[in-house]
Amino acid sequence: MDIGILGTGMVGQTIGSKLVQLGHNVMLGSRSADNPNAHTWAKEEGHNAYFGTFAEAAAYGEVIFNCTLGSASLEALQAAGAENLKGKILIDTSNPIDYSTEITTLTVCNTDSLGEQIQRAFPETLVVKTLNTMNANVMVNPAKLVEITDVFLSGNSSKAKAAVSGYLHDWFGWRSIIDLGDITTSRGVEMFLIMWFSLRHVKSAKRMNIKLVTS
Amino acid sequence: MDIGILGTGMVGQTIGSKLVQLGHNVMLGSRSADNPNAHTWAKEEGHNAYFGTFAEAAAYGEVIFNCTLGSASLEALQAAGAENLKGKILIDTSNPIDYSTEITTLTVCNTDSLGEQIQRAFPETLVVKTLNTMNANVMVNPAKLVEITDVFLSGNSSKAKAAVSGYLHDWFGWRSIIDLGDITTSRGVEMFLIMWFSLRHVKSAKRMNIKLVTS
Repeated sequence: MDIGILGTGMVGQTIGSKLVQLGHNVMLGSRSADNPNAHTWAKEEGHNAYFGTFAEAAAYGEVIFNCTLGSASLEALQAAGAENLKGKILIDTSNPIDYSTEITTLTVCNTDSLGEQIQRAFPETLVVKTLNTMNANVMVNPAKLVEITDVFLSGNSSKAKAAVSGYLHDWFGWRSIIDLGDITTSRGVEMFLIMWFSLRHVKSAKRMNIKLVTS
Repeated sequence: MDIGILGTGMVGQTIGSKLVQLGHNVMLGSRSADNPNAHTWAKEEGHNAYFGTFAEAAAYGEVIFNCTLGSASLEALQAAGAENLKGKILIDTSNPIDYSTEITTLTVCNTDSLGEQIQRAFPETLVVKTLNTMNANVMVNPAKLVEITDVFLSGNSSKAKAAVSGYLHDWFGWRSIIDLGDITTSRGVEMFLIMWFSLRHVKSAKRMNIKLVTS
């Protein structure tokens, strides 16, 4: 499959590398086509790994990952272009984190979410929020954890969520995928990040995730 | 031990009954001393189970539980009285939930929390936020879940958190108790509630809780 990834940071590179290793064609997109991160990444991954602008990566992909910082996501997606995203699944892994405050806060929460903002801004794109509740190394390799943990889906299109569920399973090995409901459920998974930061602060584990346990 | 519980709803009654069964003396407090819930509860639990006003319950307890609705907590604690709460541990199980909105929201979050508001309003009380991330039936009996799950502590006093950790273990059987840090970490555990509501909506389990898994 041809996959576009917006964002050249840790999340974009980790997902991109995993997909290239699986034999997919991946283009990493950034603000400018001469982004050194993307250049180095594509060189190291060899053939099937490309880089370009946000617009080029969005046009290239049959499926698009948003791996930009939440604070920059709407701008990055505008640069990617509504036409290039139209009718496609956008897997949104971003979180609206404001790192400028002493205690980490969100730039949007409670009555709205970044997932909803993106879906409103791109009504013809099938936004599926997922993978945002963990580090990149867990996103692409949940089997490294000592138990089966959960990943969540939020989105308005059941068909898109079913497709993403298949990708999460087939590409990354996710075995417990919980569909939380429509895109408004992005609020919960984004707000969870504040608790996640506390957990990461007190746990020294390189990898961690949560698991829902019932009786 | 003599324990005061503010709030006569499901959480207050469930914790109260468990503590009475363990042999403690428990007074349930409410806005008025003739609250029918508290009256019925005390009658059913027999001796060691009492009821009174918020102020009477706060004066009675060596340790106090706040089990009022988050939207009413500050008012209930004002009625309980700073003098009656002074120097005591206040175990805050409440959540600042606004049920009036179509999608459940919090009345305070992100840059502040109910736990912090309570600690600021009662600076001479040792506020420990805990147990707020689950239903009452899980709070007092985590062993009913099929695996060991986590409960969290937020508070400024390490001594108070150590004492509460002991209560959670000895009274309710908690085996994995994670100290998240000072009272500002209440933000995370309160914001988690929005995700919890989504999880409860999609899972039919009567009991559920989360467990942190590492590699």
